[in-house]
Amino acid sequence: MGGDHAPQATLDGAREALLEWPSLQILLVGDEGKIRPLLGSHGFHAGLMDRVHVVHAPGVVAFHDEPKVILKEKKDSSIRVAAQLVREGQAEGMVSMGHTGAAMMASVLVIGKVDGVDRPGLACLMPNMSGTPSVFIEVGANIDSRPEHIAGFAIMGAVYAEEVLGIPNPKVGVLSVGEEDSKGTEVTLEAAAIFRKHPHLNFQGNAEGRDIWNGRFNVIACDGFVGNVVLKSAEGIARLVKDGMKEALTANLWTMVGAAMVKPALMEFFKKLDYKEYGGLPLLGVKGVSVIGHGSSDARAVKNAIGAAIRASESRLHERIQARMAELAPALMDGK
Amino acid sequence: MGGDHAPQATLDGAREALLEWPSLQILLVGDEGKIRPLLGSHGFHAGLMDRVHVVHAPGVVAFHDEPKVILKEKKDSSIRVAAQLVREGQAEGMVSMGHTGAAMMASVLVIGKVDGVDRPGLACLMPNMSGTPSVFIEVGANIDSRPEHIAGFAIMGAVYAEEVLGIPNPKVGVLSVGEEDSKGTEVTLEAAAIFRKHPHLNFQGNAEGRDIWNGRFNVIACDGFVGNVVLKSAEGIARLVKDGMKEALTANLWTMVGAAMVKPALMEFFKKLDYKEYGGLPLLGVKGVSVIGHGSSDARAVKNAIGAAIRASESRLHERIQARMAELAPALMDGK
Repeated sequence: MGGDHAPQATLDGAREALLEWPSLQILLVGDEGKIRPLLGSHGFHAGLMDRVHVVHAPGVVAFHDEPKVILKEKKDSSIRVAAQLVREGQAEGMVSMGHTGAAMMASVLVIGKVDGVDRPGLACLMPNMSGTPSVFIEVGANIDSRPEHIAGFAIMGAVYAEEVLGIPNPKVGVLSVGEEDSKGTEVTLEAAAIFRKHPHLNFQGNAEGRDIWNGRFNVIACDGFVGNVVLKSAEGIARLVKDGMKEALTANLWTMVGAAMVKPALMEFFKKLDYKEYGGLPLLGVKGVSVIGHGSSDARAVKNAIGAAIRASESRLHERIQARMAELAPALMDGK
Repeated sequence: MGGDHAPQATLDGAREALLEWPSLQILLVGDEGKIRPLLGSHGFHAGLMDRVHVVHAPGVVAFHDEPKVILKEKKDSSIRVAAQLVREGQAEGMVSMGHTGAAMMASVLVIGKVDGVDRPGLACLMPNMSGTPSVFIEVGANIDSRPEHIAGFAIMGAVYAEEVLGIPNPKVGVLSVGEEDSKGTEVTLEAAAIFRKHPHLNFQGNAEGRDIWNGRFNVIACDGFVGNVVLKSAEGIARLVKDGMKEALTANLWTMVGAAMVKPALMEFFKKLDYKEYGGLPLLGVKGVSVIGHGSSDARAVKNAIGAAIRASESRLHERIQARMAELAPALMDGK
């Protein structure tokens, strides 16, 4: 029920996912009275309905609700019920497009954290010219992280890069303000020190802001304050470039003709940069799959978020993270 | 002598500045043996030479030199000598394209801080569709800022917006991870609390990453860690978009023809986004003018950085900052 275009975009995305992945089953969690009447008009024909289940959850989470309130008082909200389904093993994973804070809190408190993980982290796949995105973690406003949290984000990001993106021995960096080892805050310097004690982690040193977009690192870890700001700043730049190019290309008939000629090639390129291609951000470090989409997600973004959840589930991501954390827990404890 | 294209780009930029501002005089600070022979070939004809003085400073600062070493051991370096000229009143301001850390340290330690300013801050003018840039401060890796430092950055940024950009009663925000007053780190929440005590400062609450690019705020203040990362991230995006568009637009003859038709309009738009238009970043809070340019500055960027220094000097920026800080010092002390 969450997101700017719910439930229409969610339903359309779910239908497209059912068509793309023939063994997929979907639980639609929300107000049954609102969802059921829409199924027919959104193309859920009889053949698909065998793989669709509606789970009634009438509670609504408002943008300004405090996440804690949702969990205590809104037990019938769709986000809370979805997390409960994952916890009970009735769903392999959940996908949500609503209130990020509520989705993170429901995932952490209801599904629960992987043993050895103190702070689960929201990861974002960042595009670059190499064709293989980088894992940028943490972007969910997990603020005031300690060094061992940042190290934990990096380790979980590396497991994601290996298991889901198929990158062997991913190159890991800690986000800082200069390449030199001496550059950084107390927290980033200590996080880097934790990595240096473990050469097998393939730590490549400090990453800079520009490295988020050039593929030099496969995983870049940071505190959720800076990660969230970087992500929203990138959204702001995308909006500015989109508006500015539109204005420039429709300036006169000449530019409009030229624009028509280059449009397919430009669209192809900008599609590569579009978060909707990845659809949603995986929350790493919870005992199940949770993918959190952008509030403005359209049907394509919803479908791709479901795809991200399928890949995370098929690679048994949270079990891999648990195994890796068990192996590394002593190293992280040293950092405290 | 600093910067990737020195001394050629610096000389060309200086010559263009002399042509644009007829009352401008320039001191070229660097290795006289290298500079003098180049003046003729860079168009410094006799008419211009009346307004050019070469100040010999043979020392060279390397990229990996520690800023403190430069000041103690490299007293004959161009950056150190330039700062000394400002301190002694022989120059109204300095412009440098080299080692940012060294330029900041030379400015702070040699020119000195404005009374009441604990940490001078590097500001960047951010473009948006409104045509009036926003002042984003701090971007010079002034890390682990305390709340009163962030408040100080915001106040200095507001003076810059008023005096140099001509924006009356500029709207000020503190960068955070959500619009709601409750969102932020301990430091950003305390910085916001300092502002709320002073309604005349026109504090508009938390800014988010996307607001850096939409003109909703005239001034956005943050710690130098996140500011530096945001700026370098934007550079990374610019590089990615440039490379990707080039590849897309040269894909085949058809797109190349279309590209030729839209190129002037696109160039016009991208020029608006280009840091070279602003040329350099003013360091606010030192007792004189110091503008720090990007290492990759070309002649146009150098000329525009000189322009930024002229505007800061003409508006008596550091005196205005001093007056404002004297007025507000008690408020900032409360925040400690």
